[in-house]
Amino acid sequence: MPHLHLRLHFGSTRFGPGKAELLRLIAETGSISAAGRAMGMSYKRAWSLVEELNASFAVPLVISARGGAGGGGAQLSEQGAFVLERFQIIEAKAASAVEAEIAALERLLATEVAADMSKRK
Amino acid sequence: MPHLHLRLHFGSTRFGPGKAELLRLIAETGSISAAGRAMGMSYKRAWSLVEELNASFAVPLVISARGGAGGGGAQLSEQGAFVLERFQIIEAKAASAVEAEIAALERLLATEVAADMSKRK
Repeated sequence: MPHLHLRLHFGSTRFGPGKAELLRLIAETGSISAAGRAMGMSYKRAWSLVEELNASFAVPLVISARGGAGGGGAQLSEQGAFVLERFQIIEAKAASAVEAEIAALERLLATEVAADMSKRK
Repeated sequence: MPHLHLRLHFGSTRFGPGKAELLRLIAETGSISAAGRAMGMSYKRAWSLVEELNASFAVPLVISARGGAGGGGAQLSEQGAFVLERFQIIEAKAASAVEAEIAALERLLATEVAADMSKRK
């Protein structure tokens, strides 16, 4: 299935499916390192993305307690949950607005034409 | 100004603003290497992107004559022009569908809040 990969550029700040997934997993797991691990990311990388996100917004999106045996806990702030939900709505609205055009492009792909020809045999 | 950066994933084939710009510049300059140069790309890189694009679609998007002192000429096929136009329509429709949501996110950015506070002084 073809799909739209969508990233928002706000000046130097970028927000796309990777950061959205990280936020979603932080909400789900209650931990930055667990969320990063689920995405095959190092602890350091996950923390640095969270710090970047928090610095880009006026209010931190992720609230965390570093340290402790369990590595502290983390959760989305109200704004974090809002940003994640807004991004998911943006993805859905954009995908639905361009569904017909994507289908028109898909029909021109080499694989589609080959599949169609083999069906006709 | 915030904007949407949009890429289509068709299985292993990806099409985004970079390839769209390359097609647009090939149409404008009549040359793959001139188009690549305008994007700060090596001759080899531009050719390899064109070959990848042509292989992904059932009909080549770029028709070229390699060689000669001028490096041969290149132009978009009818399908190439169609794919480029479709992508531009997809970008415009998606951007307009999510304008309000992007504005809602933009208001939460650190830079926006800072700008707003300095205006109030």
